[in-house]
Amino acid sequence: MRQVAIIGIGQTPVAEQWDKSIREIAGEALLAALADAGREEVDGIFVGNMLSGILTNQENLGTLIADWAGLRGVEAVKVEAACGSGAAAIRMGMMAVASGAMECVVAMGVEKMSESPMSETTAALAAAADADFEADEGVSFVGINALIMRRYMHEYGWKHTDFAPFSITAHANAMHNPNARLHETINQKDYTQARMIADPINLLDASPTGDGAAAVVLVAADRLRQDRKPLIIIAGSAAATDSIAVHDRHDPLWLSAAAESSRKAYAQAQVGPADIDLFELHDAFSIMSALSLEACGFAERGQGPRLGLEGEILPSGRIPIATRGGLKARGHPVGATGVYQIVEVVEQLRGQAGDNQIAGARVGMAQNIGGSGSNIVTHILIAE
Amino acid sequence: MRQVAIIGIGQTPVAEQWDKSIREIAGEALLAALADAGREEVDGIFVGNMLSGILTNQENLGTLIADWAGLRGVEAVKVEAACGSGAAAIRMGMMAVASGAMECVVAMGVEKMSESPMSETTAALAAAADADFEADEGVSFVGINALIMRRYMHEYGWKHTDFAPFSITAHANAMHNPNARLHETINQKDYTQARMIADPINLLDASPTGDGAAAVVLVAADRLRQDRKPLIIIAGSAAATDSIAVHDRHDPLWLSAAAESSRKAYAQAQVGPADIDLFELHDAFSIMSALSLEACGFAERGQGPRLGLEGEILPSGRIPIATRGGLKARGHPVGATGVYQIVEVVEQLRGQAGDNQIAGARVGMAQNIGGSGSNIVTHILIAE
Repeated sequence: MRQVAIIGIGQTPVAEQWDKSIREIAGEALLAALADAGREEVDGIFVGNMLSGILTNQENLGTLIADWAGLRGVEAVKVEAACGSGAAAIRMGMMAVASGAMECVVAMGVEKMSESPMSETTAALAAAADADFEADEGVSFVGINALIMRRYMHEYGWKHTDFAPFSITAHANAMHNPNARLHETINQKDYTQARMIADPINLLDASPTGDGAAAVVLVAADRLRQDRKPLIIIAGSAAATDSIAVHDRHDPLWLSAAAESSRKAYAQAQVGPADIDLFELHDAFSIMSALSLEACGFAERGQGPRLGLEGEILPSGRIPIATRGGLKARGHPVGATGVYQIVEVVEQLRGQAGDNQIAGARVGMAQNIGGSGSNIVTHILIAE
Repeated sequence: MRQVAIIGIGQTPVAEQWDKSIREIAGEALLAALADAGREEVDGIFVGNMLSGILTNQENLGTLIADWAGLRGVEAVKVEAACGSGAAAIRMGMMAVASGAMECVVAMGVEKMSESPMSETTAALAAAADADFEADEGVSFVGINALIMRRYMHEYGWKHTDFAPFSITAHANAMHNPNARLHETINQKDYTQARMIADPINLLDASPTGDGAAAVVLVAADRLRQDRKPLIIIAGSAAATDSIAVHDRHDPLWLSAAAESSRKAYAQAQVGPADIDLFELHDAFSIMSALSLEACGFAERGQGPRLGLEGEILPSGRIPIATRGGLKARGHPVGATGVYQIVEVVEQLRGQAGDNQIAGARVGMAQNIGGSGSNIVTHILIAE
């Protein structure tokens, strides 16, 4: 399989973009990525998106974006894997280039959520769960995560406050990211006193949604080895699923799809957890940070919160996470999130992360989760 | 790029399947394809679907289907390109195998439409058009096609009855297809007197929707050359887009994305229109049959209806179309349609099309259209 490199990145701020339609937001990120890559033409466009159909009755999103961005005629599709749609689109784009069917593609993610009433958005997000056996029974997505967190605390003896470092770190890091949704430091007291959403998940355990788009330009790596330093390679890319409904899992506290996809990605990249310089994980809820760190081999089972309490997730720690704010503070425009993560890893590996720069970052990992851990894509990027 | 073969096919009837949910319909086709291929395991599942989010609030459909079909853990995504979603999913699956990232995949399409009121379905289908500048202005999908047909009749001087052979042929062919939605022969008088929907499109110009799923199993061809006779190869696969809104086109009567994708597919397969033994085209409306035949080089511009009037589209004609009933009579479960087309071409190339068999079929083409010609995928299959 020929190796694929990322030669361009683009992103819009994650915000309530009332003055822009979904095509405008998408076009902005796409054109920024092309400009960054120094390209004007591509062979394909892969758009990660979850909610444009439900929220705005717009499908055929690939076509819409190609058309709007001045790339009319170019092959384009939408890829959907719930909140994991962004990374899934990158993986599709990567395989298209790896196959030789395409030489240069844009893989991107976009979501427009602000225009819909919050109740509609909450209902729409439940489409990531099992519609017949979870959503239709009235359990929202935050509700599912609350059940998982409560069980985790019971099983392993953690208190709610033990999760505080995940949120505090994300907010602190987002202060230096101009594209982040939230620019507001929080402390232990803020975290503890935040408004309850679904016990034990409070407002500061949960990530904000938003409008946003991010894009990358992918090409075959072989011809670029001489020209680009550093060259950012997709060294590992893998995906796996689990049961769509949490109640069907043998162990609802173990993200088997994270374990499986990271195992494959490590093997492809020939690295292990100890080699990862930063990890953009899917901290939609603080409990997910703990579970991801465990499934990917950074902590023992049930010990994820310890990494936070011991400062290991800080930019200076053993495994920095959410280095640009993560879902928690950069924001979570669901179908775009997986692409923001990759864009942020590329920024780090290029040394372009400003005050968020992880010193000497050479190997970065990103993990995007769809559903309650039911569809997970893991990527490992290496700067050559 | 390594060549990809289709070694298994599966399908459900296209019908109002009131007793089955979308996961059951999908699972049935998927497992049938695996059984046909003699496989039990796959590396990936690519699900073409347009409407599960809008109509049933179920996204994350790849995961749902993998889980239900006993393939929990396997990587799975949904691919969306409006009514072209099915062929787009096949193309994604093909590239995954061609890249070497996967060895064996299922590419499939599924749609569940009967449970929704007709008005909701009509609104949902408009999501294939430009939501802001077409759908929100009140033009339905059949309305857009009616505008195109009216203009075509005006421009080239055809009468409505000149389109009758497209519908009559499709209905006649469907009589021998047990999976077809409609088993009812029609004649010229039936066609002429059918109830008007959106002038000049009447009921017998339009294809019926429905519930259904179809699936294929894809593997690398190289290792199979000795074992399988005939081996069905994906010899050509290409996609292209056009403006999403019809009013943005230089010539709304020319399917440029059909021309471009078929041009590429012909070149890849090293064949031309004269070599095609049958053509499963996207006859969602009879006008689309004419436009597709023209764009793919089977008729001069504006002369598509002539092929019908001269009997060339019959099973015995120069270019048989809708050989198992087409969208018109097999039915059009939108996101699944592109996969039904491929399954039907494989049946023909294997010599398994029963009373619909095209004698000596060796090269078959399928073309799946998303939107009003805005996203088009063309495949050419060859029996080796």
